[in-house]
Amino acid sequence: MSDHDGFPAQALFEPQSVAVVGVPRGLKTGQIFLQALLNPGFHGRIYPINPNAEEIAGLRCYPSISALPETPDLAILVVPTEAAISVVGECAERGVKAAVLFTAGFSELGTEEGRRREAELLATARRGITRIQGPNCMSLYVPKVGLAMLPGMPSAVGPISFVSQSGSLCGFIVGVGDTRGLAFSKVISIGNQADLEAADFFEYLADDPETEIIAAYIEGAKNGRRLRRALAHAGRNKRLVVWKSGRTSSGARAASSHTGSLSGEAQVWSALLRQVGAITVRDMDEMLDVLVACYYVPANAGPRVAILTGPGGPAVSASDAVEENGLVLAQLSTGTQEVLRGIIPSAGTSVRNPIDMGMVVTETVEVYRRATEATARDPNVDAMVVIGGSPVGASMEAYAETIAEISQRTGTAIMHAAVGGGEVFFDRAFARHGVPTFASPERALRAYARTTGRQS
Amino acid sequence: MSDHDGFPAQALFEPQSVAVVGVPRGLKTGQIFLQALLNPGFHGRIYPINPNAEEIAGLRCYPSISALPETPDLAILVVPTEAAISVVGECAERGVKAAVLFTAGFSELGTEEGRRREAELLATARRGITRIQGPNCMSLYVPKVGLAMLPGMPSAVGPISFVSQSGSLCGFIVGVGDTRGLAFSKVISIGNQADLEAADFFEYLADDPETEIIAAYIEGAKNGRRLRRALAHAGRNKRLVVWKSGRTSSGARAASSHTGSLSGEAQVWSALLRQVGAITVRDMDEMLDVLVACYYVPANAGPRVAILTGPGGPAVSASDAVEENGLVLAQLSTGTQEVLRGIIPSAGTSVRNPIDMGMVVTETVEVYRRATEATARDPNVDAMVVIGGSPVGASMEAYAETIAEISQRTGTAIMHAAVGGGEVFFDRAFARHGVPTFASPERALRAYARTTGRQS
Repeated sequence: MSDHDGFPAQALFEPQSVAVVGVPRGLKTGQIFLQALLNPGFHGRIYPINPNAEEIAGLRCYPSISALPETPDLAILVVPTEAAISVVGECAERGVKAAVLFTAGFSELGTEEGRRREAELLATARRGITRIQGPNCMSLYVPKVGLAMLPGMPSAVGPISFVSQSGSLCGFIVGVGDTRGLAFSKVISIGNQADLEAADFFEYLADDPETEIIAAYIEGAKNGRRLRRALAHAGRNKRLVVWKSGRTSSGARAASSHTGSLSGEAQVWSALLRQVGAITVRDMDEMLDVLVACYYVPANAGPRVAILTGPGGPAVSASDAVEENGLVLAQLSTGTQEVLRGIIPSAGTSVRNPIDMGMVVTETVEVYRRATEATARDPNVDAMVVIGGSPVGASMEAYAETIAEISQRTGTAIMHAAVGGGEVFFDRAFARHGVPTFASPERALRAYARTTGRQS
Repeated sequence: MSDHDGFPAQALFEPQSVAVVGVPRGLKTGQIFLQALLNPGFHGRIYPINPNAEEIAGLRCYPSISALPETPDLAILVVPTEAAISVVGECAERGVKAAVLFTAGFSELGTEEGRRREAELLATARRGITRIQGPNCMSLYVPKVGLAMLPGMPSAVGPISFVSQSGSLCGFIVGVGDTRGLAFSKVISIGNQADLEAADFFEYLADDPETEIIAAYIEGAKNGRRLRRALAHAGRNKRLVVWKSGRTSSGARAASSHTGSLSGEAQVWSALLRQVGAITVRDMDEMLDVLVACYYVPANAGPRVAILTGPGGPAVSASDAVEENGLVLAQLSTGTQEVLRGIIPSAGTSVRNPIDMGMVVTETVEVYRRATEATARDPNVDAMVVIGGSPVGASMEAYAETIAEISQRTGTAIMHAAVGGGEVFFDRAFARHGVPTFASPERALRAYARTTGRQS
């Protein structure tokens, strides 16, 4: 990994050594970044810096960047606002390649002083080679090297990279994503973008072999033309999912005080995102749903969907969702219908699509298995949504394993959906077995349609 | 409770005795209805009927309705299709007031034979006073008397009644609703509506003093004019929430095979529901969200909303949702802003609405408490959405208790929202303490707007 064009890729994504400057001795917010490197564990050397401590969390502590035994690749600053410029000065002098500033109190204040301070910060970094991520950001998560922004983040490495103007959303996306079977390559909280901008990260990720899906939370652009170019590059090379907030005047005002962003016209953004081929989402639920679909479903999967359900009501509602999302209910072959007729009892059920298996399936996972298999084999079926919780008496594990195995064997995309109000019925078993799982059939179908380009 | 106009209210909602006809000896689907009466426990007498058993689940078993020591108020039939008509004949002869048929194989088959069989069923009942609920339905849930459709349903009694053309949705609404602090008066699965129709139940519930909120899942009408009249009556007297499925041609076909319903034109339904003052919802999540809002928030609550958050990103997104749902961001008084300035650190935060408390609040529930209190007291604030999981170190219980207490004391509606992707962060503590809780700020604001009439 080389730092081409001045972008400090190696320092940010594969640092050999990290200094955390301004770590408090007590377990305050500032210690989170150090704890994040200790648990589950950064692969390189860690240097806590605090002039008033000999040792923090079992690590030798140094009084300053200058006092370190080596030049760290990366410095994470959690110092007070007043100290930030002088520490960045030390970084520049010592030749630290990248400084990540959690420290806030700059342009996001909306004051002249805040803007002046941010300009001075940048000018100070420019005296050396130091590039700045932030200020007012939540650092990075790169599981491949054990770099993290919060303690206890997952160690799994995957193909999703996320660029975010909100730091807290990074933690939530990774945490909730993990429960849904998603894994990440690089997650970057960009904060005020005083130096490194969203565009820099999109440019890099567009050519990053470790990234297949680029997701972004954007409040506003620093430099619209550059951002558009970078997003277009990203959209050409990778699957691109963008959540643009600050769409309304209320949201735009909030964005301005959050990260000093100018949100821009909603229509302009909407046109831009369409042009660059982004899948746009409007909230966290939709972001996660679309990422799950991107993760598991090929982009060219077809529009013909079969609905297979135990409970009957959701069959109707899911059929509405098929049509409302620009998909079609697959016409099952007569052969498939015949097989289904042999599996499913006749009263109160249906072997036409939607396939309503009736309450009998609550007794055994075997009816689910056989019906899923018969449907997934039908050449008229591109994808299936299987609706229902765990059948009584069959463990969620066995049920999830069955679905995953059939999907793999038949090549048909099989999504699982809880009946809805899914907070309770949601289960990690599906994620563990690699089954794309959604809180309701409506959400599964919407995500599938967005991901396969049928609905914008 | 009298059975005026031939509607068997007492038999359905306050029966003294219930016969379950066709209970199998093994633990099959058919036993669910008997088990549902045993756990947590029906308040009256229970008679299992099976000609081949002496005793089932510890209860004396009888060979037929005619052999019972008394005429039961209610009979629940889980017999095979072929036996249903003769058992209904016995009910009519013996003077059973209401027969609920789980048994399917009638008009929902879409065949001439199915329709003929349903007509004969009805004609047989008409030989006596027996009214029919169903066939092809999931019975009733009336917690006040311990009547239930599934084992282990909650005992709590509340002001919501639900009329549903899908049986499975009844169980899900009650189960998930319970985790969100909702409690029910009467839940009715109406099935094919061979005799008693949705309109009969709406007419009754419109004047039922135990019901304050009427919710409904409708696939189609038997008699459009009657249904409209009944819904108008319900909408005048109670808060009315309707989920109409079968909106598309795919959904309509599915509805036809599910409960033999004619879905009707989507636009006609949409106009009708607007006219009767119903809040319309499109899926299970939205149904539950709106019920939570109806349950906790007065219908005349105002549009001025304050957003209070720990994580910063959701503040922007929630502000968008305020405006997109026809609400307004409350202008905090200068007094409130001053108080907030004393509570919240200045860097990376905002005391304007949305109020962004910054990461420091993850350390203590005290900042949340004081900021919530100051904001809730502001006369410019009608409602608040408090965003965030449990602050580190403070239990979810204490946090929920705090919010509930402040809401009660100040009279300001306070909703809690998880950051989004809320399956993981959702917690029952809020429900237990009577705090309306939503999986994301977007969902909270949408439900609030729908419930207070700002968004249709």
